[in-house]
Amino acid sequence: MKLLVVGSMALDTIETPFGKEEGILGGSASFFSLAANMFTEVGIVAVVGNDFPEAHLNLFRSKNIELEGVTKVEGETFKWEGRYGYDLGDPDTLGTYLNVFENFDPVIPESYRDTDYVFLANIDPELQLSVLKQVREPKLVACDTMNYWIDNKPEELKEVLKHVDVLLINDSETRALAEEPRITRAARAVLDMGPKVLIVKRGEYGALMFSDDGIFWAPSYPLEEVIDPTGAGDTFAGGFMGYIAGHGITEPSGFKTAVVYGSVIASFTVENFSVRRLSSLKDEEIETRFSEFLRLSKLD
Amino acid sequence: MKLLVVGSMALDTIETPFGKEEGILGGSASFFSLAANMFTEVGIVAVVGNDFPEAHLNLFRSKNIELEGVTKVEGETFKWEGRYGYDLGDPDTLGTYLNVFENFDPVIPESYRDTDYVFLANIDPELQLSVLKQVREPKLVACDTMNYWIDNKPEELKEVLKHVDVLLINDSETRALAEEPRITRAARAVLDMGPKVLIVKRGEYGALMFSDDGIFWAPSYPLEEVIDPTGAGDTFAGGFMGYIAGHGITEPSGFKTAVVYGSVIASFTVENFSVRRLSSLKDEEIETRFSEFLRLSKLD
Repeated sequence: MKLLVVGSMALDTIETPFGKEEGILGGSASFFSLAANMFTEVGIVAVVGNDFPEAHLNLFRSKNIELEGVTKVEGETFKWEGRYGYDLGDPDTLGTYLNVFENFDPVIPESYRDTDYVFLANIDPELQLSVLKQVREPKLVACDTMNYWIDNKPEELKEVLKHVDVLLINDSETRALAEEPRITRAARAVLDMGPKVLIVKRGEYGALMFSDDGIFWAPSYPLEEVIDPTGAGDTFAGGFMGYIAGHGITEPSGFKTAVVYGSVIASFTVENFSVRRLSSLKDEEIETRFSEFLRLSKLD
Repeated sequence: MKLLVVGSMALDTIETPFGKEEGILGGSASFFSLAANMFTEVGIVAVVGNDFPEAHLNLFRSKNIELEGVTKVEGETFKWEGRYGYDLGDPDTLGTYLNVFENFDPVIPESYRDTDYVFLANIDPELQLSVLKQVREPKLVACDTMNYWIDNKPEELKEVLKHVDVLLINDSETRALAEEPRITRAARAVLDMGPKVLIVKRGEYGALMFSDDGIFWAPSYPLEEVIDPTGAGDTFAGGFMGYIAGHGITEPSGFKTAVVYGSVIASFTVENFSVRRLSSLKDEEIETRFSEFLRLSKLD
């Protein structure tokens, strides 16, 4: 196994201008692993309740995604309810039910501990630190976080940042973390906290990568069909880390193509609810859209 | 004279996280003409009050911007007061005082009527139609508008759109005009209303150009110094139209480079209040940043 993700598996209830779906598969580890799996072997560490449908686990098994680190415990699975408005921007959270996720204490199976590439999805920074203590000499560690942790566990988060190579967050998280409204200055301040690379995910506006090499701008594909934006960020991270792990890349100079693949694969996720589009995705579709991406910002 | 702009000249009071400036030069025609002037000969049609400082007019004169169409009338100049929040996104309007602009009835001087390139800045669509009746066979007409006109004068606006080649608006205006939240579908619906090209200005997220040739994505330069975003959109339009007029371009296939120049020159405007950065801008600075733009989204 090349790549490990520690995150959530969830049952979401999502409302968008195009429909409402109840109890559908969600969670950062779900989107991440299905995306990364297009490029490399991936394993999950997560917790689910005993209401988590076996059919969902079978979906991951059918893709040869490693589930040894997925624990099923007594109780209900993490549930999130959200509603997207007309412009499909930031959703309103109608309900968050942590359930079994509240006591999530990630235990990395022995067979996972030598994994070279590690992604710490958006979980409590204390748990991210616990994972970092359990893995042995990974080649590259990336992580995500959110405003809640920036506001409530800033010290723990800053400790995590000292030990990760790549941080993937959005615009407002970058500004909040650096306490600086100007994105370029904020990015530099974040790089000073530890990561070698900062990737600012901007949804339909693409992604910006900051490193000592300078700035790289990847577009987001302007889509005909956007049905549900949920999971786009985790899919992006999965495509990015999957490409890097699959190609054994460790130097930031090699990350640009990975950013574009992240953006490409995220553009499929939003075309349907849950992981539906992602789970039926074919290599040829990814390659075709990758070429379209390159054309998109080409001058001649 | 190659390019004509019909729009506003204003005295703005602007507050950003970086300072407050009162009664500074603003207005769509001001930003547009100073930007376009970097690439071609430009003339303005606008109205100002007798409080409009002669120094401002002298600035335009010093750049050889044609002012025969600028009328000074009894009363106060159009004034706008706005405040930008922490993230420098959409400002709060604290006050709009149309003053002499309320009775603006653009009269195109005879010497302007054969101008090949025309830009109708964001004014009442009825006035835009009046301008179109006064000019004779321009090669290319572009226009801007805003949600207020989309909501309040939809029929007049749709009549304007039948007669323009290029429409430059932002994301939310595109969605509102098409009554469709998905930007790609909305763009296609807008093209069906008449324009051959739609340019969606997205501020710090760049610009998207839609035409029969497909989609082109131009980045926005990630800036160290953003002081005041006012005028960025009009500067973009000025750079875009100035480049097109200066190079005698009429076919959409030639617009891509113009979009990048629009984005480049807008990135200077926001580095200071009012037109300060724009009015001291040098050709070499534009060319240097143009090269940086191309590097920004280059894969290798």
